[in-house]
Amino acid sequence: MSEIRFDLVTGKMVIIAVERAKRPHDFAIAHQEKKGSKDCPFCPRNENMTPPSLVEIKDGQGKWLVRGFTNKFAALNTEVKEIDVPSLYRGEYGYGVAEVIVESPYHDVTFGNLTLEQMKRVFHAIIERYRSIVKDEKIKYVQVFKNFGPRGGASLEHGHWQVIAIPFIPELVNREVEGTQEYIKKERKCPYCEIIEYEREAGVRLIGENEKFVAIAPYASQYPYESWIIPKEHQEKFEEIDEDSLSKFVEILKPLIEKYEKEFEMPPYNIVLHTLPPRDIRNYHWHIEIAPRLTIAAGFELGTGVHINPVSPELAASILKLQNL
Amino acid sequence: MSEIRFDLVTGKMVIIAVERAKRPHDFAIAHQEKKGSKDCPFCPRNENMTPPSLVEIKDGQGKWLVRGFTNKFAALNTEVKEIDVPSLYRGEYGYGVAEVIVESPYHDVTFGNLTLEQMKRVFHAIIERYRSIVKDEKIKYVQVFKNFGPRGGASLEHGHWQVIAIPFIPELVNREVEGTQEYIKKERKCPYCEIIEYEREAGVRLIGENEKFVAIAPYASQYPYESWIIPKEHQEKFEEIDEDSLSKFVEILKPLIEKYEKEFEMPPYNIVLHTLPPRDIRNYHWHIEIAPRLTIAAGFELGTGVHINPVSPELAASILKLQNL
Repeated sequence: MSEIRFDLVTGKMVIIAVERAKRPHDFAIAHQEKKGSKDCPFCPRNENMTPPSLVEIKDGQGKWLVRGFTNKFAALNTEVKEIDVPSLYRGEYGYGVAEVIVESPYHDVTFGNLTLEQMKRVFHAIIERYRSIVKDEKIKYVQVFKNFGPRGGASLEHGHWQVIAIPFIPELVNREVEGTQEYIKKERKCPYCEIIEYEREAGVRLIGENEKFVAIAPYASQYPYESWIIPKEHQEKFEEIDEDSLSKFVEILKPLIEKYEKEFEMPPYNIVLHTLPPRDIRNYHWHIEIAPRLTIAAGFELGTGVHINPVSPELAASILKLQNL
Repeated sequence: MSEIRFDLVTGKMVIIAVERAKRPHDFAIAHQEKKGSKDCPFCPRNENMTPPSLVEIKDGQGKWLVRGFTNKFAALNTEVKEIDVPSLYRGEYGYGVAEVIVESPYHDVTFGNLTLEQMKRVFHAIIERYRSIVKDEKIKYVQVFKNFGPRGGASLEHGHWQVIAIPFIPELVNREVEGTQEYIKKERKCPYCEIIEYEREAGVRLIGENEKFVAIAPYASQYPYESWIIPKEHQEKFEEIDEDSLSKFVEILKPLIEKYEKEFEMPPYNIVLHTLPPRDIRNYHWHIEIAPRLTIAAGFELGTGVHINPVSPELAASILKLQNL
């Protein structure tokens, strides 16, 4: 059972995924990463360890190359229920959808080592599920992301993406979309289009570019070696990407992820999609943000909400620089 | 050299603590925790490895029991400078103060194992430095916090607190203070006073209380087993705490930290002070928030700003419950 709760003072939301009578010591253990593929629920032949497939992209022999299904340990519940909320507070039932997309049949292949074709298959599967999930009008946002490594929040080693659909527009998404509206109102230009133009000119935070995408180390990077990949054309929604753009997208994403995985020796990282909520008609410019997790957000960040980043984005870009795209 | 930068779209701030020509591989190593006390800069007889003392609380023989000094690897710089900001963006020089308070001469004693007297000495030293630092009117907030364990963001093992003073009121602090004003305007009561009253009555999220303080698992806990300690009396500022209240404060803090350290076998955790900014005349109610770091905020949290907490605050309170306070 899952609940959405609001802080009395700040209104800040949290999703409480209530697990009955869980002992604290089990808890730490549950977050250990399982090694090896024999017991891996994401490996071929272990499909019975997971819920049934919701999407499969298959090879010529009918074997799956990418597979998606409901997350067995979902943060949200698909029923709609009423719950009791203590009179002082505000809370609601945690309606939503949580799914997993396994990115290849191979247990040990990292995301950066997938072929370009396989990367495209992963996004095809994500987009297929995304489009299906947003048909439910109760869903207000779908967060698509990948966690890599235990310190990146991955509880299973076998490469996978997650799709979590929620019944509200989360505050960070709203802040970005609202920030975009305000910038456009003031400057008559999309701020992301401005960033692309400025950073291509300036060069110092440019990681690489091809015909359709730029990769930059953003000026106010919150994480050391953070990068963004932004489509050059002003596009609101990721799920509307065409086949040609998707090819160009993975042609910049793959070498960048390879670079991270090599340069930092398989660092924990998160890849996070930022896109306009479904049925939202405001202006926006989708992009992905990649955050290697080389530092820990600790007491200062928890208290202030402000990150300390020990690496300048200019240095990050010089180290991540991609050649021959 | 340190810079404060603002995201073009959201206005979100980051502190970039620029470290020249740092290689990525050094970086990972710099965040390893050093073991043992021989090379520990926080141990007695190694004082020459740190900047000179700014505060010392001594025993009868003149040996220090608590010692504070400037952080050698400060996130902010004490000079005031002008910097070049790229024309598209907003940024400023990272003025501020960063100090360390070593909480005991003993390398291996955890915070929960300090005596009540020693805990009070730690807070005496913090308050002394706090009061001195805020004499500088350029300082708009002082974040006081403790990181424990590498996964809690501590880069050194020897128990210590940090005091980071910044030239702005950070957004989370402002959100809490503003939320407090709005609540008071609407309900004619301090929301933290309301929480105390409600939770003492309800009981299910109450961890413990004494004459002057309550400890609760907050209704919208962002972290599993998160707890808050709040003074029962409406007090704006921690640094104005009197001697008797400080005694009662450590009498609830110590058993709670002991409980965490035992129950979760030395988990990483952060203790974060929430207090009214200096010279701020708005309403507020200081408290501390304790966040064990048993989960990793990953792609979902990065994208949405919403935490998923797998442990209900009601379960947390039942496990953390303090007897015989």
